[in-house]
Amino acid sequence: MEVVNTITVMQEKCENLRLSGKRIAFVPTMGFFHEGHLELMRVGREISDIVVVSIFVNPTQFGPHEDFESYPRDMESDLAKAEGRNVDLVFAPSVNEMYPNGYQTKIMVEKVTKHLCGLSRPGHFDGVTTVVAKLFNIAKPHIAIFGEKDHQQLTVIRRMVKDLDMDIRIVGVPTFREPDGLAMSSRNSYLNADERASALSLNKSLDLSEDLCHQGEREVLKIRGAIEAFILRHPHTAVDYITICDPHTLEDLEILKKEALVALAVKVGKTRLIDNRVIKPA
Amino acid sequence: MEVVNTITVMQEKCENLRLSGKRIAFVPTMGFFHEGHLELMRVGREISDIVVVSIFVNPTQFGPHEDFESYPRDMESDLAKAEGRNVDLVFAPSVNEMYPNGYQTKIMVEKVTKHLCGLSRPGHFDGVTTVVAKLFNIAKPHIAIFGEKDHQQLTVIRRMVKDLDMDIRIVGVPTFREPDGLAMSSRNSYLNADERASALSLNKSLDLSEDLCHQGEREVLKIRGAIEAFILRHPHTAVDYITICDPHTLEDLEILKKEALVALAVKVGKTRLIDNRVIKPA
Repeated sequence: MEVVNTITVMQEKCENLRLSGKRIAFVPTMGFFHEGHLELMRVGREISDIVVVSIFVNPTQFGPHEDFESYPRDMESDLAKAEGRNVDLVFAPSVNEMYPNGYQTKIMVEKVTKHLCGLSRPGHFDGVTTVVAKLFNIAKPHIAIFGEKDHQQLTVIRRMVKDLDMDIRIVGVPTFREPDGLAMSSRNSYLNADERASALSLNKSLDLSEDLCHQGEREVLKIRGAIEAFILRHPHTAVDYITICDPHTLEDLEILKKEALVALAVKVGKTRLIDNRVIKPA
Repeated sequence: MEVVNTITVMQEKCENLRLSGKRIAFVPTMGFFHEGHLELMRVGREISDIVVVSIFVNPTQFGPHEDFESYPRDMESDLAKAEGRNVDLVFAPSVNEMYPNGYQTKIMVEKVTKHLCGLSRPGHFDGVTTVVAKLFNIAKPHIAIFGEKDHQQLTVIRRMVKDLDMDIRIVGVPTFREPDGLAMSSRNSYLNADERASALSLNKSLDLSEDLCHQGEREVLKIRGAIEAFILRHPHTAVDYITICDPHTLEDLEILKKEALVALAVKVGKTRLIDNRVIKPA
């Protein structure tokens, strides 16, 4: 496994890999790997010749009062884990390598960013799309792999790739969970024992929404209310949003007719967690 | 020469050309070719294996009251001229192919777009950068070639390419002029005989600015004033802007110290023309 820190070296290596006929799968990450990340690498290994992983905590996707500074980092452990998954190439640039003096460009996806996390984290998705486009231009992948835990991120990236005619196949991988159902997240490391227990309410509330749907409930307001009440019964929780929407446009639904995305963001103590599920009336 | 109208076919062809080791030079245009365009193709032929030209009048870079509908088009003649310059591949998509239903992404370069034409044509450069990025992802060039007549466009594109880490060399080609000095432009076809005569004042005023500079004038206000007075002596002219600025940041200068860009946009009758020159104190 090779680790590269500069854009020009990375581009040259990836271009040569392409020219030699290899298919590149790319897993962009912010590091601090958990099993969810490793699963993305495993999928990449399965469907391509070369697996490239980037590790970059991207400042432009954090708001001014968010956790950019304190976001967990552990490069040494990450590299060992990536090597354990037979990753070929890791790109780990500095912030200055990615955003040198004079930097002034951004990519905006205008509609699907205006829902869910886009409302509570203004500018977040501009940061995501811009850095992902940069990383695509650096790693030159045929395939890029993202977790479905951030369903909106995946939707936004699919939209950007389609709109800007990027010749890259986007693969979504189902959320990897702890045995008790908590969605894997680097931010889970922020939780104390009490909060960890309450954090289970996210996934359980998604179970509840699915049960209600299968029992015939079609009114979004009622399902949403049940989810909220359920979560708030758990200590240290505060709801950021609970949304039931079209999985593609992310526009709010009022009545369940076909596939719907239930997406939520909940603060547990000071830690903001997200989870989601696609439910479907029988 | 082959003409392609769809994105997927074009991407496949260009990807295969790259894989076969060919170097692609790309000339994005809005068609209605004059000698300036053909010069870009000639340069492309000289420095690459394959010359790709796109012909697409891009609606998103025209303002609501600008000349998108009436912009001159002549596909048949354009194709003949491109063939005459040994172009290999022409990409001529429809508006719907480029911006299908649901389209919602744009690329913004934030600072260098805030001067010159960016002031009088709000949103223009977002349209330019977005369509150029799309065309780059479609034609997959190693080199892209632009005329220096639109110096700001070239500056904005260089900035986008650098900021988004596009692995493409941008080549600027000096403005091609009529024998009497008028910069070639598809919009010159709008001019009647009187206007055509007055249009010469743009290039002549740039001569004047250079003369003043070489005579030792260093005050931008004075040079600017002389240019304006000179142009307005010609009938049917109205100045949109006359700017003397840093050629890279496009920020206004007050005193000439080193290289400076003199850039102007002038309405001659109803036709808006631009021209520019880099001048340099001896």
